[in-house]
Amino acid sequence: MSEPRLFWEDFPVGEVLEFGSKLVDKHEVIRFAREFDPQPFHLDEEVAARSFFGGLIASGWHTCGMVMRMMWDAYLHDAASLGSPGLDNLRWRVPVRPGDVLRVRRTTLESRVSVSRPDVGIVRFRWEALNQGGEIVLGMDGYQMFSRRPVDGVTA
Amino acid sequence: MSEPRLFWEDFPVGEVLEFGSKLVDKHEVIRFAREFDPQPFHLDEEVAARSFFGGLIASGWHTCGMVMRMMWDAYLHDAASLGSPGLDNLRWRVPVRPGDVLRVRRTTLESRVSVSRPDVGIVRFRWEALNQGGEIVLGMDGYQMFSRRPVDGVTA
Repeated sequence: MSEPRLFWEDFPVGEVLEFGSKLVDKHEVIRFAREFDPQPFHLDEEVAARSFFGGLIASGWHTCGMVMRMMWDAYLHDAASLGSPGLDNLRWRVPVRPGDVLRVRRTTLESRVSVSRPDVGIVRFRWEALNQGGEIVLGMDGYQMFSRRPVDGVTA
Repeated sequence: MSEPRLFWEDFPVGEVLEFGSKLVDKHEVIRFAREFDPQPFHLDEEVAARSFFGGLIASGWHTCGMVMRMMWDAYLHDAASLGSPGLDNLRWRVPVRPGDVLRVRRTTLESRVSVSRPDVGIVRFRWEALNQGGEIVLGMDGYQMFSRRPVDGVTA
């Protein structure tokens, strides 16, 4: 791994960023469902067509996975991330269907330095996944920890 | 599909249930990470050994997927589930490592009939994933909708 370019200081409060473009693939939807969430409307096109969803939809957990991957590709791969303690207000608002194209909107809500670890910063983000029609299909408020930017080669 | 046996009435408030036994598999951890969450400590044993986790750990989203699958196997496959609008207070508390054996504890917190759809009930559960040492590795409060039990063959 190369040295990260993004530290806690690079996520200012109020910033709104959109990124990612993930085509939801039918075979991936079915493969995820088979392993983790075999509800019939995630797994079987014929049964799904007769369900109240009117067709195959992605597991909500699969949508979370796709959002995570778009975050990684857009900035996490290049960030001094120390992981996430969790998230709040996760809502699956609109069904995600094969053929949809998802993107992510990230809003930086809050940011502070850790009390117990002054070399670490904690950021609270609003993450939303949108489909090609601009509908918010998923929303969640997530926490993420980052190292602070080293000063003169020394971590603060 | 056969007719479901479990309806909204079968999730009484206060009930605590433990179920599932999932051995966390190294190859599954790496495969999930490669697709959805390629942070090095989820993907690469050597890099993970040098990270602050001291070894490979499962993506938090993978842990959610494993919990979902244990729910399905234990009761959802047999329930008149209408899906979940979302969840709150998701926290990844303890790293999940290959070789761990996870189980789920479900506590039924609240239950009510839908105002807009009186044939549907909404239940709020506390879900916790525990490892073989009894540590709570993940906690979340989730909502789930179920059909109400039909009376005399007629849905209430």
